[in-house]
Amino acid sequence: MDPRIREHAEVIVDHSTGLSDGDNVVIDAHPVAEDLVTALHEKIADVGANPLVIQQRLGKRFRRAYLRNHDGEFDLPSHEMALFEEMDCYIAIRADDNVVEESDIDGDVQTAYSQARQPLLEERLGKTWCLTQYPAAANAQIAEMSTEGYENFVWDAVNKDWDAVKEHQQQMVEILDPAEAVRIRSGETTDVTMSVAGNLTLNDYGENNLPGGEVFTAPVPDSVEGEVLFDKPVYQRGHEITGAWLQFEGGEAVDWSAEKNEAVLDDILTTDDGARRLGELGIGMNRDIDRFTYNMLFDEKMGDTVHMAVGRAYDACVGAGNESNDSAVHVDMIVDMSEDSVIEVDGEVVQRDGTFVFEE
Amino acid sequence: MDPRIREHAEVIVDHSTGLSDGDNVVIDAHPVAEDLVTALHEKIADVGANPLVIQQRLGKRFRRAYLRNHDGEFDLPSHEMALFEEMDCYIAIRADDNVVEESDIDGDVQTAYSQARQPLLEERLGKTWCLTQYPAAANAQIAEMSTEGYENFVWDAVNKDWDAVKEHQQQMVEILDPAEAVRIRSGETTDVTMSVAGNLTLNDYGENNLPGGEVFTAPVPDSVEGEVLFDKPVYQRGHEITGAWLQFEGGEAVDWSAEKNEAVLDDILTTDDGARRLGELGIGMNRDIDRFTYNMLFDEKMGDTVHMAVGRAYDACVGAGNESNDSAVHVDMIVDMSEDSVIEVDGEVVQRDGTFVFEE
Repeated sequence: MDPRIREHAEVIVDHSTGLSDGDNVVIDAHPVAEDLVTALHEKIADVGANPLVIQQRLGKRFRRAYLRNHDGEFDLPSHEMALFEEMDCYIAIRADDNVVEESDIDGDVQTAYSQARQPLLEERLGKTWCLTQYPAAANAQIAEMSTEGYENFVWDAVNKDWDAVKEHQQQMVEILDPAEAVRIRSGETTDVTMSVAGNLTLNDYGENNLPGGEVFTAPVPDSVEGEVLFDKPVYQRGHEITGAWLQFEGGEAVDWSAEKNEAVLDDILTTDDGARRLGELGIGMNRDIDRFTYNMLFDEKMGDTVHMAVGRAYDACVGAGNESNDSAVHVDMIVDMSEDSVIEVDGEVVQRDGTFVFEE
Repeated sequence: MDPRIREHAEVIVDHSTGLSDGDNVVIDAHPVAEDLVTALHEKIADVGANPLVIQQRLGKRFRRAYLRNHDGEFDLPSHEMALFEEMDCYIAIRADDNVVEESDIDGDVQTAYSQARQPLLEERLGKTWCLTQYPAAANAQIAEMSTEGYENFVWDAVNKDWDAVKEHQQQMVEILDPAEAVRIRSGETTDVTMSVAGNLTLNDYGENNLPGGEVFTAPVPDSVEGEVLFDKPVYQRGHEITGAWLQFEGGEAVDWSAEKNEAVLDDILTTDDGARRLGELGIGMNRDIDRFTYNMLFDEKMGDTVHMAVGRAYDACVGAGNESNDSAVHVDMIVDMSEDSVIEVDGEVVQRDGTFVFEE
């Protein structure tokens, strides 16, 4: 076994989830991640926790077979709920043998299935959880990388000194957390301002998301003004949206376009009222993620980028008394900040062309 | 997908388990059985049941990693128990990529692990359950067959008209159920008598075991007299015992030997007092199982054989007021009845050289 797989398992168990004696763990993984699941069993045994492997969330071929043959309403299965209620920790390992395995499932059926299972998601999110990636060949393929190149990429991004990352990123948290106004400019195409007054800025150092590597908060919903061109592709519902451009007035996207798959962008933004407002502002700080790989778990943490999500805000980012943007969607979109770009906080430049003030 | 896989799934869902709308199902399977698990999801969707795939019982590589790194006592994991309590049906699919994956786990550790998890087993056995086999390459290998040959073998044995099987076997049930004395003779080496008075004879037509194909009961523990040479190998604890010979007096094996691995036979018979007495008499009636494959799920149902198990009796076979043989083990051993062999029930010949009286 590649020794980096055991390192990955160590990061998950010791750092991301902090498992200890007697913890009930559920590992949700596709069989192509077998080596990492095996290494996790070694570590989980070391700490005295109790593992159970399931293939629900990530068993795409099974889910496709089920969904294409199902008629009528979906149940909320009480056996899965009972499992999650008694679980202390949920570890989801993304890995595929075909990332578009679900491309021929009816979208309405997928939505109805997700809605029926919403309480399972809530239950899971109430426990210690970690979402990570195993570098399987199909995932390398969608990243447009060789499998070995993608292995290097994933393990460089994951197997890090996360305490050092935390400390480095905390400098940005201390700038953004007490701030009121944020302005983001990039080239001639992006100039947007928003208030984050009273909202909280969180430091993502590889706990729920592995890799971590961002600092993020929620904009005050009606404060967003200006325009943004998202230079990186947005991969949604099996389609790639490129050149997405949004114009905000009074917090709401009032005009938008895309170079490719504008209809998919339309669908997203017209889901509900909250889908046209921003729910997140994130600043990517993981410089080991040095390329776009069509995988938001990595892309949004890329060094020298910011991302904004239309849709639902994270509760933990919304300050007491502030409005929380609510929506059925949360779609992250990325702006490249490496050239001719500036982040200003309360009128001060805090990042220019990808370099933070505390790095100068 | 081989159409026989969908037939197999149909037999499991419609015949073996009789799943219906709203049933909570757990499928426990190794990834090499992926096609059958996929076909099961199609059928489970058809009937409106709720599937969850786990890899606990059959995730041997994971369990090996866990057991070799574990120290101290084992927990009874409450999340697994909660899952099983809310489950209506458990489907276990045997399939391996290496059948001896657990050959370097300490036996005492395996025993302690099984003992700690005994309540999970009891909970499972209290629900509708089905144990079946997927013809993976490693399972073909241990059967000394090509993968394609083994596929034919498995699906011929499994995909049958089980109602017709039930009816055929019921003729033997009706002979054995009211019987008192059974005598089994084969060549010069096997001549054993036992009472089954007051005990119940069950008809196995592919419900809990798929394939099914036997009729079985429990001997009255202290009634067994005579000697038996088990001509087929016994595969136990990673070892093949051949030529096992046992002599019974007053129900107890008082002398025994084996051609190969007699020490393993010693270990089994000295586990506890019940391990030296018979817990089961079974009559194999599935003639599509025409060869020995080192897999008791098939071997014990082979046409023209009988099997006797030392150790624990099945509760369902023991009549009210009769003694039930208790033991930590239940080891089936097989006698070839195809030549120079007779089964007598209450003094009447009911099978000669493999042919039943109701087949003449």
